[in-house]
Amino acid sequence: MSPRLPLPDDLPVTGAWRPGDPVGGRRFHRLPADRPFSLEGGEHLDGIEVAYETWGTLDADASNAVLVCHALTGDSHAAGRNGWWEGMIGPGRAIDTDRWFVVCSNVLGGCQGTTGPASDDPSTGRPYGSTFPVVTIRDMVRVQASLADALGVERWRSVVGGSMGGMQALEWGIILPERVRSLVLASTTSEASALQIAWSHIGRMAVQADPRFRGGDYYDAAPGDGPWRGLMVARMCAQVTYRSDEAFAARFHRSVIDRFAFTADPVFDVEGYLDYHGIKLVRRFDANSYLRLNRAMDLHDVARGRGSLEQALGRVQVPVQVVSVRSDGLYPPVQQHALRDALRALGVKVDDVDIDSPQGHDAFLIETGILGPRIAEFLRSIDD
Amino acid sequence: MSPRLPLPDDLPVTGAWRPGDPVGGRRFHRLPADRPFSLEGGEHLDGIEVAYETWGTLDADASNAVLVCHALTGDSHAAGRNGWWEGMIGPGRAIDTDRWFVVCSNVLGGCQGTTGPASDDPSTGRPYGSTFPVVTIRDMVRVQASLADALGVERWRSVVGGSMGGMQALEWGIILPERVRSLVLASTTSEASALQIAWSHIGRMAVQADPRFRGGDYYDAAPGDGPWRGLMVARMCAQVTYRSDEAFAARFHRSVIDRFAFTADPVFDVEGYLDYHGIKLVRRFDANSYLRLNRAMDLHDVARGRGSLEQALGRVQVPVQVVSVRSDGLYPPVQQHALRDALRALGVKVDDVDIDSPQGHDAFLIETGILGPRIAEFLRSIDD
Repeated sequence: MSPRLPLPDDLPVTGAWRPGDPVGGRRFHRLPADRPFSLEGGEHLDGIEVAYETWGTLDADASNAVLVCHALTGDSHAAGRNGWWEGMIGPGRAIDTDRWFVVCSNVLGGCQGTTGPASDDPSTGRPYGSTFPVVTIRDMVRVQASLADALGVERWRSVVGGSMGGMQALEWGIILPERVRSLVLASTTSEASALQIAWSHIGRMAVQADPRFRGGDYYDAAPGDGPWRGLMVARMCAQVTYRSDEAFAARFHRSVIDRFAFTADPVFDVEGYLDYHGIKLVRRFDANSYLRLNRAMDLHDVARGRGSLEQALGRVQVPVQVVSVRSDGLYPPVQQHALRDALRALGVKVDDVDIDSPQGHDAFLIETGILGPRIAEFLRSIDD
Repeated sequence: MSPRLPLPDDLPVTGAWRPGDPVGGRRFHRLPADRPFSLEGGEHLDGIEVAYETWGTLDADASNAVLVCHALTGDSHAAGRNGWWEGMIGPGRAIDTDRWFVVCSNVLGGCQGTTGPASDDPSTGRPYGSTFPVVTIRDMVRVQASLADALGVERWRSVVGGSMGGMQALEWGIILPERVRSLVLASTTSEASALQIAWSHIGRMAVQADPRFRGGDYYDAAPGDGPWRGLMVARMCAQVTYRSDEAFAARFHRSVIDRFAFTADPVFDVEGYLDYHGIKLVRRFDANSYLRLNRAMDLHDVARGRGSLEQALGRVQVPVQVVSVRSDGLYPPVQQHALRDALRALGVKVDDVDIDSPQGHDAFLIETGILGPRIAEFLRSIDD
C-alpha cells in the first residue's frame, strides 16, 4: 500500500546543457581570458563563457537595446518558439523586436551554456561540481556588463526582469546606473525575505538529502543515477509556491487523474501535475546550478556593503516600473510596494503596476496579456 | 563549497512510540478482538489499540466530556507539561479541566501508541510497514467512538479540533450526530483543497525519494538508517506552510546564525530554525504514519458518498464554532467561511471566530490567549 515513486527510465545524469545541444539561436561570449573574474564572495573564476540570444537589430547609435533577465530556472531563450517569455517578446509584441534589440543571457552559475557548476573547470578539465564558488546577483550583473561591452551596448534602454530577473535589473540600476535608461522590476524585492530564504533552503536540502547528489560531484554517474529525485522534490515545492490556493482550486479542485480510489498512490490531478513539472525540470536543469542560483537569491540584499537601503537605492537615477501581483504569496505585494515607496522617497519616478491576477508569483510569466501593454507603454515613455 | 547536510548521530530508525516509552499519563483502549475493524477503503484491521489521555473527572451523568482531536503530528498528550495544547487545557484554562472531563486519543494510523504502520501486525508479529492500509478521517472517528463507549461517554459536550483535528470533529457531527452536543472546528475545511493535497503529496514524495524509506519497510534498519532525511524535508516544507510571510519576516528577517558569509552552508537564522524543526520531528514521528495521515487528510471530503456537501452537512444538528485565521495560507479563511455559510444555510447555529493573527495555520496552536476565551465562552453556552 506504499505509494509508488515515479521512475522515468530515460533521465540524464544532469539536465545541464552540453556543447552541441541545440537551443534557440544561442551564441557565446567569452570574458577576457587574461584576467580572472573576481566574485563578490572573494573567489574568482577563469574563462567565463556566457550563452545569450538576441532578437531584433541594434540601432546605429546603439540606443534601442533592452536586456531581459531570466528567473531561477530560466535561460537565454526568452523569445521565439518555446521561449519562456514568448508572449511578451517578438515582432509587434509588448517588447517589440521590430523596434528593440532584445538581449537575454543565461546567468553566471546557470546550466544552459553560461559557466556554472556543470562546466569544466579549466584548471582541471573536469566539471566544477562541488568546487563551484558561491555567486551573487551582483556577479551575474557584472558578467552581463561584459556581454554588453561586447555587443556595443553602452546604455540599455531598459533592463527588465521578474523574480531573480528583477533582482538583476535592480542591481544594474545600482551598480551601473549610467548604463541604464530605465528598469522594469516585476514580482521582485530589494532583499530576499525570510520566507524566500526558507524555501530556497528547503530546495537545497531536498537535493542534498538525495544520496545520488554525492556532495555535488555526480557528473560521472550513469544516466539516471544523478540527484533527480531530490531536485524533483525541490521543484515540486517551488511549483506550489509559484502559484496560489485560488489558482489551484480553480484548476484542479479535487479532480482525479483516472478514478477515485482509497490508495496512497497519486489519485488527484494536482499530484500528477506536480510530478509532471518535477520530472520536466530535472530533464533540463542541473542540481548544482539550482543550489547556486537559489543561494544567490538568498544573498540578494541591495543594502549589503552600501550603508543602507536608502543609500543603495539612491544610486538609481532612472524611471522604474515596479510590478506587483495580488496573489503572489512568495514575493508578496508588500515587498514591491516598499520598494516603490523607498524609490519615490528618493525622487525616482516610479510607474507602479498592480496586477489583479490569481496566478501568484508566476503571473509575471503567465499574464503577458495584462502586463505586456504596461511594459510596452513604459518602454515607449523612456527618452532616447 | 557544497552545503553540508546536518548529520545528527543519535537518530532512531523511526520516531514512533515504543511500548515502555513514558509519555504523559497515556492509557490504552483495545477494540473488541472478536471482530475486525472495517475501514472505509475496504480493508480491515485486527486488534486495534488506542492510546489516550484524560484530564478532569467525568460527571455522574457523563455530561461533561470534551473530546479534543489532534492535528497531523500531534498525539494524545494535549495537556499538562509539554502538551501540544497546554495553554488551552487545564485547571482554570479555556478548556477547564476543573469543569470538563477532557479526552484526547492518538489517531488511527498514528505512531504514538495507537495502531499504525509501526505497530506489529498480529497476523505476522512484525511491523505493518508498507502493508498498513489507507485510513480515513471517518475511520479515525469510528475508532474514537469505540473509546467513547469504553469511557462511558454517550454524548460529548463538544468535539474540538484544529486542522486534521477539525476534520475529525466535523465528521463526528456527521457520522454520529446524536453523540455530540457541539463542535469546535478551527482552521479546517469540509474538503481538502488542491493546495493542501499538493503539499501532502510533496511531503510523501520527499519521504519516498529517500532510499532509506525502502518502500516503507525500514523498521529493521540500524538506528539512524531510517528515512529521516526525507521526513526532515517533508517537515521543513510543512513548517513553512504552517506559518506566514509576515510571521517569518517579524521573527527572522535576514538575521544570521553566527556571522554573514558568502557560503552555501546555512547562514540565516531561518535556515537553522527549519533544520531544528525538521530534526525535532524525525526524533518523534514515524515516516509511514506521516504518509498515511497526510493521505487521510487528502481524502477528507465530507460530501463523499453522501450525495452532496449540503446533504452531508445537513446531518449536523448542534451548535458549531468555526475558527478562521487571517494569515492562514494553507487553510485560508475562505474555506471556513464557506463552511460557516453552508452550515448557516442549513439552519445550524454557527459562532464564527475570525482571528487577526500573523501566525498562519499554526495560530490555532499558538494564539491560545485569543482563541481560548472564545472556546471557553462557546463551551459554556452549550446546554447539558
